[in-house]
Amino acid sequence: MPALNPAARLYSQARRNLLPRHESLVAVAGRWQHEHLARLGVRPEVTLRCGADPYVGALDISEKTLARIHPGLSAPALLSVVRLPRWTPADVFRPEARLVLVADGIEYAGNLGTLVRTADAAGADGLVLTNATCRLTHPKVFEASRGTVLTTPVLTYDTVADARRDLSGAGFTAYVADPAAAHSYLDVDYRHRKVALVVGSEGDGVAAEWRTPDLTRVSIPMRGLADSLNVAASASVLLFDARARLG
Amino acid sequence: MPALNPAARLYSQARRNLLPRHESLVAVAGRWQHEHLARLGVRPEVTLRCGADPYVGALDISEKTLARIHPGLSAPALLSVVRLPRWTPADVFRPEARLVLVADGIEYAGNLGTLVRTADAAGADGLVLTNATCRLTHPKVFEASRGTVLTTPVLTYDTVADARRDLSGAGFTAYVADPAAAHSYLDVDYRHRKVALVVGSEGDGVAAEWRTPDLTRVSIPMRGLADSLNVAASASVLLFDARARLG
Repeated sequence: MPALNPAARLYSQARRNLLPRHESLVAVAGRWQHEHLARLGVRPEVTLRCGADPYVGALDISEKTLARIHPGLSAPALLSVVRLPRWTPADVFRPEARLVLVADGIEYAGNLGTLVRTADAAGADGLVLTNATCRLTHPKVFEASRGTVLTTPVLTYDTVADARRDLSGAGFTAYVADPAAAHSYLDVDYRHRKVALVVGSEGDGVAAEWRTPDLTRVSIPMRGLADSLNVAASASVLLFDARARLG
Repeated sequence: MPALNPAARLYSQARRNLLPRHESLVAVAGRWQHEHLARLGVRPEVTLRCGADPYVGALDISEKTLARIHPGLSAPALLSVVRLPRWTPADVFRPEARLVLVADGIEYAGNLGTLVRTADAAGADGLVLTNATCRLTHPKVFEASRGTVLTTPVLTYDTVADARRDLSGAGFTAYVADPAAAHSYLDVDYRHRKVALVVGSEGDGVAAEWRTPDLTRVSIPMRGLADSLNVAASASVLLFDARARLG
C-alpha cells in the first residue's frame, strides 16, 4: 500500500485518537460539522475532500484513501482535523462566573460530549473534569457535543485536590450529587452563591475525595425502581434547575 | 457446526433482535441484570450459564456455545431471555395518573433506554412512543434503562392521532418541546392538570402531527451555541421540573 500523504495520515491518527494528548487535535467529518466550523470561523489544521462540494483549502483525496482513513464513510465526504482551544482556569473562573459543572470519573466519550452540550445549553461558565478516563479529543465527544466542545471551556485536572483548590479559590460552593444524600437538590438555596455542581460516573458515583464532610451533598429523589439517573440526565436536571433559580 | 440447543438459539435470536416483535423477548446478560430480575421476581423464559455461580433453572452451556451466541462475552456468564410485560392504555392512563412522557421519532436504543430510566426516576406514569424506529426489545434498551423497562409502562402507537386521542380522552394536556417556542417551560402552570410532555428525536424534533396550533409548545431556553439538547437531556429537564411543581 502506498504511503498516505501527511494530511490524510494526520486525519487517520486523529480519528483513532492516536495523537499526543497535548496536541488537542480532533477528527471531524460531515456537513453540519463543517457548517459549524465555518460559523465559528474555525480554521482546520487540514481539510480533505472526496467528491464533496468545494471547500476553501481542501485537499482532494481518492475514494481509496477515504476508505483507508475513515472506513465506513463514502463520498461525498468532507473531513478535517481541528485543534481544540486550550483553556486555563482564568477562562472558567472569571469574576462574573456563577455556574460550573464538575464531572468526575467520566468513562464514555458519548457521555462527555453530552455533558459539554448540556453545560453550553444551560449557560454554565465551564466544565471541570476530574478522574476522566476518556479524552476530549475523541471524535464521539465532538459529535455528542454538537461541536460545542470548540467553545465551552473545559478544564481537565490531574487530581481532585487541585480542582477543589481552584474552585474554592474562585469562591465556588460545591454541591455533590449523591442519590443517598438526605437533602434534595430542590431544598438548596443557591442565591448569592457561585455554584459548582458535581456529578459522578455511571457505576460508582463521585470519587471519595468529593465526598468529604465539608461539602454539601444533594440527591435527585428517585421515585421509581432505578437507583440513579444516567450522569448526563443528572447534570441536565441540576444545571437547568440551578440556572432557573440563579436567574 | 452442530445445531444449537433451542434455548441457546432463542437467546442468540433475541440478542440480535430477530424475534417477532409481538413476542416481546429480550436478551439479558450479566450479574446486576440477573440480580435485578431476581429482585423483581421475574422468571426468565430461559437461563443459560457458562462457568457462573449456580442459578435456579439455568442450563449449562460450553464456552464454545457462549462464543457463538454472544461474541465477545467470556465465562463466567449468565444469560437469559426475558419477556417484557404487555402494557395497555389502562396501565398508563389510570385515574390518578398525572405525568406522562411522550417521545416521538426515537431512533437509538440507548436514548430509548435512558428515556425509560428517566421516566421511572421522575415517577412518570408511563412512556408513550410515536414514530419510534427502534424496538423496545433491543438489548441496549434494557441496559440503558438499568432494567426499568421491565416495570415502566410503555405504549407504542402506530399513529400520532391514536396517541393524541388516548391522551386527550384521559384528560391529559400535551406540552410539546420545541426550541423555537415563544414560551419557556418555566412559564407553564401545570397545577390542576394531567401533564403529557412531548419530546422529539435528535435530528428533526417532533413530527408535524404534534405541532398543531391547539397544542402548547414550550422551549428550554438555550443559553449557549447549541441549538437544542439531546432528547434524553430535554426529557430529564422537563420531567423533573414538572414533577417538582406537580408535587
